[in-house]
Amino acid sequence: MLPERQTLIDAARGLTPADTVFKNATIFNPFTGDWQRGDLAVKNGIVLGTGAYTGRSERDCTGLFIVPGLIDAHVHIESSLLTPQEYARLVAPHGTTTVIADPHEIANVAGVAGIEAMLAARQGAGIDIRYMLPSCVPAAPLEKGGAVLEACDLRRFIGREGICGLGEMMNVPGVLSGDPGIADKLALSAIRDGHAPGLSGMDLNAYLLAGLQSDHECTSPAEAEEKLRKGMYIFIRDGSTEQNIEALIPLVTRDTVSRCCFATDDCHPDLLMREGHIDRCIRKAITSGLVPELAIRMATLSAAERFGLHDRGALVPGRRADLCIVDDPEQFTVRQVFLEGMEILPSRPARPVPFPPSIHCQVPSSAAISIAGNGPARVIGLVPGQIVTESLLYDTDSRNIPDTDQDILKVIVCNRYGTGRCGVGLVHGFSFGRGAIAASISHDAHNIIASGVSDDEILLAVRSVIQAQGGLAAVTGTSATVLPLDCAGLMSTLPFEDVVTRLDLLSSVTRQMGGINRPFMYLSFLALTVIPALRITDRGVFDCVKFRDVPLFAV
Amino acid sequence: MLPERQTLIDAARGLTPADTVFKNATIFNPFTGDWQRGDLAVKNGIVLGTGAYTGRSERDCTGLFIVPGLIDAHVHIESSLLTPQEYARLVAPHGTTTVIADPHEIANVAGVAGIEAMLAARQGAGIDIRYMLPSCVPAAPLEKGGAVLEACDLRRFIGREGICGLGEMMNVPGVLSGDPGIADKLALSAIRDGHAPGLSGMDLNAYLLAGLQSDHECTSPAEAEEKLRKGMYIFIRDGSTEQNIEALIPLVTRDTVSRCCFATDDCHPDLLMREGHIDRCIRKAITSGLVPELAIRMATLSAAERFGLHDRGALVPGRRADLCIVDDPEQFTVRQVFLEGMEILPSRPARPVPFPPSIHCQVPSSAAISIAGNGPARVIGLVPGQIVTESLLYDTDSRNIPDTDQDILKVIVCNRYGTGRCGVGLVHGFSFGRGAIAASISHDAHNIIASGVSDDEILLAVRSVIQAQGGLAAVTGTSATVLPLDCAGLMSTLPFEDVVTRLDLLSSVTRQMGGINRPFMYLSFLALTVIPALRITDRGVFDCVKFRDVPLFAV
Repeated sequence: MLPERQTLIDAARGLTPADTVFKNATIFNPFTGDWQRGDLAVKNGIVLGTGAYTGRSERDCTGLFIVPGLIDAHVHIESSLLTPQEYARLVAPHGTTTVIADPHEIANVAGVAGIEAMLAARQGAGIDIRYMLPSCVPAAPLEKGGAVLEACDLRRFIGREGICGLGEMMNVPGVLSGDPGIADKLALSAIRDGHAPGLSGMDLNAYLLAGLQSDHECTSPAEAEEKLRKGMYIFIRDGSTEQNIEALIPLVTRDTVSRCCFATDDCHPDLLMREGHIDRCIRKAITSGLVPELAIRMATLSAAERFGLHDRGALVPGRRADLCIVDDPEQFTVRQVFLEGMEILPSRPARPVPFPPSIHCQVPSSAAISIAGNGPARVIGLVPGQIVTESLLYDTDSRNIPDTDQDILKVIVCNRYGTGRCGVGLVHGFSFGRGAIAASISHDAHNIIASGVSDDEILLAVRSVIQAQGGLAAVTGTSATVLPLDCAGLMSTLPFEDVVTRLDLLSSVTRQMGGINRPFMYLSFLALTVIPALRITDRGVFDCVKFRDVPLFAV
Repeated sequence: MLPERQTLIDAARGLTPADTVFKNATIFNPFTGDWQRGDLAVKNGIVLGTGAYTGRSERDCTGLFIVPGLIDAHVHIESSLLTPQEYARLVAPHGTTTVIADPHEIANVAGVAGIEAMLAARQGAGIDIRYMLPSCVPAAPLEKGGAVLEACDLRRFIGREGICGLGEMMNVPGVLSGDPGIADKLALSAIRDGHAPGLSGMDLNAYLLAGLQSDHECTSPAEAEEKLRKGMYIFIRDGSTEQNIEALIPLVTRDTVSRCCFATDDCHPDLLMREGHIDRCIRKAITSGLVPELAIRMATLSAAERFGLHDRGALVPGRRADLCIVDDPEQFTVRQVFLEGMEILPSRPARPVPFPPSIHCQVPSSAAISIAGNGPARVIGLVPGQIVTESLLYDTDSRNIPDTDQDILKVIVCNRYGTGRCGVGLVHGFSFGRGAIAASISHDAHNIIASGVSDDEILLAVRSVIQAQGGLAAVTGTSATVLPLDCAGLMSTLPFEDVVTRLDLLSSVTRQMGGINRPFMYLSFLALTVIPALRITDRGVFDCVKFRDVPLFAV
C-alpha cells in the first residue's frame, strides 16, 4: 500500500487515474489574477493540477468557470441563529468552503464549554470551520455574562485542530495601557485579529505594535487606507447591519488586493438564505465597480494567506479541491460547489445535539418589574440604523407608563445566570402600540431582555423565552410567537429553513404590533454598556458616558 | 521597569521619545506599492510608525527615499569565498539586511559540523542570516564528499534560531519516485525550496504536490510563468554565471509581484564588491523595464512573506527597522543602511575563528597521476558559458600529453577525505600554454581538482592548496599564487577586500598562462557527475549519460 502522498504524486504524474477531471473549464488563477482554460484533475480531495488527465469521473465544464472555494475571513456564527452545522448547510451552496469564526457570543454565555461545543460541531459540518479564540470575554468588566476567559483559559485550545488564532481584540484601551491579561492573550498566537473602529494615528501605531494584524471595522476609505498602509489586513464587511463594501471597495487594487478580504461578521439567516454569503460580497463588490478577478482573489487566496492556510485559496497541485463552478464571473451565481473534491449536494439537516441548558432564571414577579416615581426620567432613545443610543430625559409619572403617545415603554433585563437580578428602565423608539418582545440575545452578557406595552405581555414574553431555553418571543395578549434558541439561548437546533420561517413570522407579528423594523436587533444591543449613551442592565439604568449605574428618575 | 513591548507601545503613542526619527522622508509602502511622505520613528530597533514623533536623534531626510532592508531569497554564501561575517560586511552597505542562505557546500564537506559553523557565524554578522537546511547532501550517491545528511541528521536543526526551512530539493527523480529518505526530509519543515530546472507539465504538478514551493532555476518566461501559475514562488536569479533578470522580468506585474523575489544563488566577491548585491538586481530589473516600486517590493515584502518573516519587509509599526536610504529609486544607489535601527557603518573585518582542518590528503606522487596508453581517448570538452561538458574522443598517445596544439591537458581529482584516491583524465578548452591551476572547490564533493600543462606544475598547485588548508592556486614554474580558503576549503578567513585582490591576481596569472576567462569556475564543475556529459572524479573518468566510471582510453 502506497503512502497517501505517493498515491497523489503518481496520479499527478498521470501514472494512475484521477478521481474527477473537470474538463474544458475556465479556471481562475489567483497568482496571476486571470483565467486559464484546462482540465483540472482531483484525487482524494486534493488538486493534482491541470493537464491531459483522465479520471474515473469526468465532468464537461465547457463554458463554465471554476474558482477556488470562498472564504469568510471573520464571522460570528451565532449571529445567524443557526448551529454551525446548519450554518454550513446554508452557506455551502453559495460557494463558501471555509469560514474563520469567532465564537464570541457563546463564549460569553458558556465559556470554555461553549468553545468546545463549537469545535465539536466542526465534525461533519460540510465546510471547514476554523475558530479564532474569543479575546474579550467579557467585553468589559461590567458586561460579565456566563464566563470570564483569561489567557490561561484559552491556552488549552492552542494547537488544537480547527483553532486559527486569537479573535478580534476589542479592548483598545487595555492594549494601549499594557493590561497584563491582554498582553498574555496576545502572546498566545502569532495570528491575531484586531477590532479598532476609528482608531488612527499614533494610537493605531501602538495598537499594531502590540501585535494586532487585521481590522473589519473600517467604515471610511480614509480609515481603511491608513490601516492598510500600516500593515493591517482589511476585512471588508457585509453583514446584516454593517455594510461597508460600497464605501471601501475603491481601496482594492491590484497593488492592495493581497491584503484585502471579505467578512460577514454578523449575518441573519434570512439574508444568507435570500442573498447569499461571500458570493453576495463578490456580487456587491462587482456592482460597486471592482473587476471580478480582484473580488474573487479577495475571497480566496488573500483570505487563505492571511490565516496561513497554505493548503487552499488556489486550485494548484497539492491544495484542497475546494471549488465553485459559476456560469459567469460578472454575475457570480454559484452553480455547484465541491468540498475536497466532493460535490456539496442539497442535504437534510442533521439534527444536532441540543446544548446543555443555559437559562437559569425564573420569570420575575410583577412587583420586580414595577416602577414608582415621577419627574424627569432617563429614557434610552433608539437611533434608527445605529447601535448607539441617546440619553433622553422625559418628565414622567410611572403611573402613565406605557406612554404610547410619546412612545415610552418599559424595558427589563433579567439575569439568566442565577443571580435573580432584574433591572427596569424606559425606552423610546420601538413604537409598539401593543404587545411585547423578549430575547435571550442581548450583547454581550446575553441576559434576557424584554420590552413592551404591558407588564403582563412583557412577563409572558420572558416566560416564553425561558420555556424555550432561550429564544426570541413576540407576545400579543396571551398569544406568543417564539423562535427557540435552545443552544445557549443564541442558536436554534431547527433547520435553517424553519428558522427563517419563524423569523418571518416574528417580523409579521411585530409589524402588527405597530413596531419598527427589526425590533429584536435594537433590543439585543440595549444592554451593551460599552457603547454610548444610555443602556439597561440587570442592575437597572446604566450611563455609558459616566460608566456607572444611574437611577431611573434623575432627581 | 516596563516590559519591552510596553516601552515600545508607549513610544508609539508618543508618550516617550523615539530613538531615531527619519524626518521628511519619502517612504516606500509595499502594501500599496507607492511612496508616502512622513517622519518615520524607530525605537529599540523596531519601527514605531509614521507621525509627529520626536526622537533623541533626528535625521533630516528631505529629498531622500527610504525602503525596507533588502532580502536575498536564495544564496550560497560559500560561493562568495567569504565567511558569513565577511559576506555580511560586503553586502550590508548595498542595502541587504536579510539573506536566506543554503549552506549546501559546507554541508557536503563537513556535514552537521559545517551547518553548525555557519549558524555560529550568524552572531555579530551585522545582517540577519537565515539558513535553509541542505536537502541534497550528497547531491547524488556517487557525489559523496565529507558527509551524508539524512532527515534524522537535519532534524536537530528544526526549531533552532536562524533555521528557516528545507533548502533546494534538487533530486527531482527521487521526489517523483517517492524515495522515503526524501519524503522524510520534505516532512521536516513547512517551508521547502525547490530546484527544478526545465520541469513542466504533469511532472511539475507531481513535484509541487510533494511539497516544493519555490524555484530559482527558471530561465525562460514560459517556464517561469507555468511555475508561477502552479503556485511556486519565483526567485529571479542574478548570480555570477546565471543571469535571468532580463529574460524573466516581464513576468513581474502588479498581479504577480507578491510571488516574485530576487536571488543571487552563487556570486563571486568581485561581482558583489563592484556591482552590488540585491541593489544590483533592482537596478537590473529597472533597466530591464520594471518600475522601481515592483522591483523594491520583490526585494522586500514578497521575500519576507515567502519565508514567513512577518517581522520585516515593510516599515510599519512593530516590524524591524531594517532600512536603506536611497537618493533616487530609479538609480537605486544605496546611500545608508540601518539594521534594527542602527546605521551600518564601514567596519574592519572581525577575523573569524578558522574552521577545523578539512583537507585530509597528501600530494599525490608523480606515478599516481601518470597515464599510459594510446588510441581514442575520452576528453572532457569545456563549453563556453556553460557547466555542461562535451564528451569528446581524441586519438591520443599519452606521451604527447600535454597536447597544447589541440588544447588537451591533464585533469586530476584527489580525494580530500582520506581515501587516498586520485583520478586522472583529459580536458579540452582551458587553452593554457603553461602552468597549472588547482582548487579545493569542486562541486559537490569538493575534492581537490587540478589541471595544467605539466605534472610538476599540477602537483605544485595541489601542494599549494593542501598547504593552505584549501584554496585556489595558480602555478607557473615554481611560482604559486594562492587564495587560501581555510574554512572547509571553500571560504577564506581573509577580509573581502583581500579576497578580491587575490582573485584579481589569480586572474592576472591565468591570463598570462594563456587561459580562458574564469578557469576556476570551469574547473570547479568538472567533477559534478549529475550534469552531462563527461566528468572527472577521484576514481577517474565518469560518463554522466551512462552514469558510470569509464576508462580513459576508449578501447
